[in-house]
Amino acid sequence: MSEKNIQLALFGFGCVGQGLYDVLHHSEVLQADIAKICVKDPSKKRSVDDALITFDKNTILDRKDIDVVVEMINDTDEAFNIVSRALKNKTNVVSASKKMLATYFEPLFLLQEEHGVALIYEGSAGGSIPIIRTLEEYYDNELLSSLRGILNGTTNYILSRMELEHKEYNEVLADAQREGFAEIDPWLDVSGADTLYKVCLLAVHAFGVILKPEEVLHLGIQQVSFNDIRYAREKNLRIKLIASAAKTENGYRVFVMPRFVRADDELYKVMYEYNGIEVEGAFSCKQTFTGKGAGSHPTGSAVLSDISALTYQYRYGYKKLKKLKKQLGDAYSTTPLLETDFAIRVYVRYENQDQLSLLDIRHVVEEYRSPSMNFIIADVGFQSLYVLKDNAQNTLFVCAID
Amino acid sequence: MSEKNIQLALFGFGCVGQGLYDVLHHSEVLQADIAKICVKDPSKKRSVDDALITFDKNTILDRKDIDVVVEMINDTDEAFNIVSRALKNKTNVVSASKKMLATYFEPLFLLQEEHGVALIYEGSAGGSIPIIRTLEEYYDNELLSSLRGILNGTTNYILSRMELEHKEYNEVLADAQREGFAEIDPWLDVSGADTLYKVCLLAVHAFGVILKPEEVLHLGIQQVSFNDIRYAREKNLRIKLIASAAKTENGYRVFVMPRFVRADDELYKVMYEYNGIEVEGAFSCKQTFTGKGAGSHPTGSAVLSDISALTYQYRYGYKKLKKLKKQLGDAYSTTPLLETDFAIRVYVRYENQDQLSLLDIRHVVEEYRSPSMNFIIADVGFQSLYVLKDNAQNTLFVCAID
Repeated sequence: MSEKNIQLALFGFGCVGQGLYDVLHHSEVLQADIAKICVKDPSKKRSVDDALITFDKNTILDRKDIDVVVEMINDTDEAFNIVSRALKNKTNVVSASKKMLATYFEPLFLLQEEHGVALIYEGSAGGSIPIIRTLEEYYDNELLSSLRGILNGTTNYILSRMELEHKEYNEVLADAQREGFAEIDPWLDVSGADTLYKVCLLAVHAFGVILKPEEVLHLGIQQVSFNDIRYAREKNLRIKLIASAAKTENGYRVFVMPRFVRADDELYKVMYEYNGIEVEGAFSCKQTFTGKGAGSHPTGSAVLSDISALTYQYRYGYKKLKKLKKQLGDAYSTTPLLETDFAIRVYVRYENQDQLSLLDIRHVVEEYRSPSMNFIIADVGFQSLYVLKDNAQNTLFVCAID
Repeated sequence: MSEKNIQLALFGFGCVGQGLYDVLHHSEVLQADIAKICVKDPSKKRSVDDALITFDKNTILDRKDIDVVVEMINDTDEAFNIVSRALKNKTNVVSASKKMLATYFEPLFLLQEEHGVALIYEGSAGGSIPIIRTLEEYYDNELLSSLRGILNGTTNYILSRMELEHKEYNEVLADAQREGFAEIDPWLDVSGADTLYKVCLLAVHAFGVILKPEEVLHLGIQQVSFNDIRYAREKNLRIKLIASAAKTENGYRVFVMPRFVRADDELYKVMYEYNGIEVEGAFSCKQTFTGKGAGSHPTGSAVLSDISALTYQYRYGYKKLKKLKKQLGDAYSTTPLLETDFAIRVYVRYENQDQLSLLDIRHVVEEYRSPSMNFIIADVGFQSLYVLKDNAQNTLFVCAID
C-alpha cells in the first residue's frame, strides 16, 4: 500500500452509498478519500459537499488518479457500462449490484482476466456476512456439497412479523413499506428475484458454476397467507424464503422458493431483517453465518471491506470456476450445469382443484380440504414449477417441505 | 502457484494430523504432497506408509524442498522450536497449536516480519469457523467493539448434556471421556485455559493487542453442579463457558468465565460440541458464526485451508497490531492494555459464608440460602476473581450474569 490515500469514485449515492460515506468517515485504518460522487438526479438534495458531486460519468471514468470505482447504482445496464469501462481502463471496481453482476457475470469475469484487474462485490450478497470472501478463500479446497440461505432481509422481516403478530401478508407489507423495510415496488424482494441474483453469485464462488439468472427458478412469498403460517406453527415449522444450491451427480440444483424449516434447523432462528447462510462441506460439516442482511451501514461496511482489500491487491481467484472451465473446455458454455429434472416435495395451497393441473403431480402424500383452505403435499416434477415463476395471475402458494 | 505440487512436512500425527491427511486426500483443487511426517513415539502404529514417517525433526527442517511446515504437536516449547526454526529458514508455517501461539506470540510475530515469511493458524481457534481470517481480512476497517464466543467444544458438550439429561458434572465428564469428547486429563478444556489461548489469538486479530495468557483471567466449569443449571433453566437462561474481548475507553476487557446466557442471545442456541462466535461492530452490528468446534476433520479442513492460502502467498497483515504498535511506539510493551479494574456482576454458589471473603464484594443484589444450596448475585471487583484461577481448592462456582 502506498503512503498516499487511495482515491475513490462513487457511482450512486443511495442507501448503500450513504452508508459507505458514514462508515468511511469513521474508519481508523483505511486511508481513502472520496474524489467524486457521480449521481443521476440533479434535483435531489444531498448531505455532502456539492463540489464532490458530478452528473457526468465520463469526467470520472477517464481520470487517471482514481484508484477504485465503487458502483452502487440501480440501473443494471448503466451499471454494467460503468463497471466494464472501468475494468477496461484497468481500474479496480467494487460493486454492490447483484442483478448486474449475476446478469453479466461471464463478460465481467473475462474482463477481469483480460485486463488483470479486480472486481469484488461482498456487498452484493449476505449483507454484512462476509460470505463471498469466505467461500472464495476459505472453502476453496473443501468438497462443498450444499449451501442454503435466507438472503433477503425484507421477505424475512415480513414472514417473521406475520408469524409473531398473526397478521396477513398485505398488512405487514404495508407496515414494512412505511418503515422503510420494503420498497414502494416490493417485487424484487417478495418475488425472490433479489435472492435469485444473490444465489447465482454464491454458486460461482461455491461451485464454480455461472448460471443464467433467467433459467433459475424463483418463487416468492406474494401468495403466502396467515393460514400457511398457522399450518407451519402447528407442525413446529417456520416458512422462510430459502435459496438453495447443491451439487448432485447430475449437476447443480439451484433455486429460490419458500420452504418449511424445522425448529432444529439453524435457519429457523434467523428472524426479521437478518440473513443466515448455512454451508455444508464433506469435512467441515455445517457452518452457519448470520448477520444483518439489509441496511445502509451493514452493506456500507461490506463495501468498505472490499475497498480495503483492494489496497493489498486482493482479487477473487475464481479457482473453482477456472477448474471447471478447464475440465469442460469448450463444452463449459454448452454443458447444462443446472439440474431441473427431479421431483421435489411441496405444499401447495390452492383455491380450485383446476389450478393443480398446472403442476406435474407425481405422488400425493397428504390432502386437506375445508371451507377456509385447501392444500396438498405432493411430489411434483420440478420443471413444472417454472410455470408459476413471475406469473402475476398465480394464486397458488407453493412451499418446499421435507 | 507453480505447476509443481507443494511439499508439506507434517509435525505431529494425532487427531488433527490424521484429519488433515484424510481431507488432503479428498481435495480436488489443492495440489499438495506430504513429503514427510515427523512424530515422537516410534512404538505407535500409524495408518500411513512407514516411509513417510521420521522421528528426527532435523532431517526435515533442513530440507530445501519443503514449501510448508505444518505444526500440530502438543509440546508447547518443542512446537515453538520447530516453528521458529522453520520461519528462520524462510519456510511458511501452518500451526494449530493455540497454547504455543498465544504464549510466544510476540517473538513469532517478529520472526515473520524479520524473515518475510508467513505463519498462519486458522485451525487454532473456532474449529471449522474461519474466524481469524474473517477478523483479519473482513473486519480490518470496522470499528469492532466486542467479540464473545463459545470456543471450546468439550465444555459446551458437557454443559449441554448436563442440562438436557439432568445429570451432574462428573457423570457427564466420565461419559464424554469414554466417547472421546474429553481428554483423560480434561484440565485444559474444563478450566477454560484452552479457551483463554484462543481468545488471546482472536484479540490480536480483532483489536491488535498481544496479551500475556498468564495475565488473563480464566475460570472454568469444574465447579458447576446441576443445581446451577436448574437455576438457569428456571430463569430461561443457559450456562455457557464464554470468552469475552471488548474494547473500552480504558483498554481491553478480556477474560474467560462461565456466563448465564439469555434465550434471545445467539450463543444460547449453540449446543454440544459446536462453537459460536459473535462479533459486534459499530456499523455492521452483530454477526454470528457457528460451526463444529472440535474433531479431526473440521480442524483438518481449517489447516488445509491455510495450506491452500499459502499457495497464493497469503499472510496475515496484522494491520491493527501494527497500527497500535505505531501509535504507542516504545510504550507498546509497557502499556497495560488489559483492563482489570472494574466491577462485574456474578452469581456465586458457595458452601460456607467464609468462602465469600475471598471476593471483593461491592454490592449484593440477591441472596439465597437453603439446606441444598446457597448463592449470592453481587457486583464484585474483577481483580478479586483472580484468586480463584487455577485454584484446585476452590469450590465456589462463579458465573457472570447480566
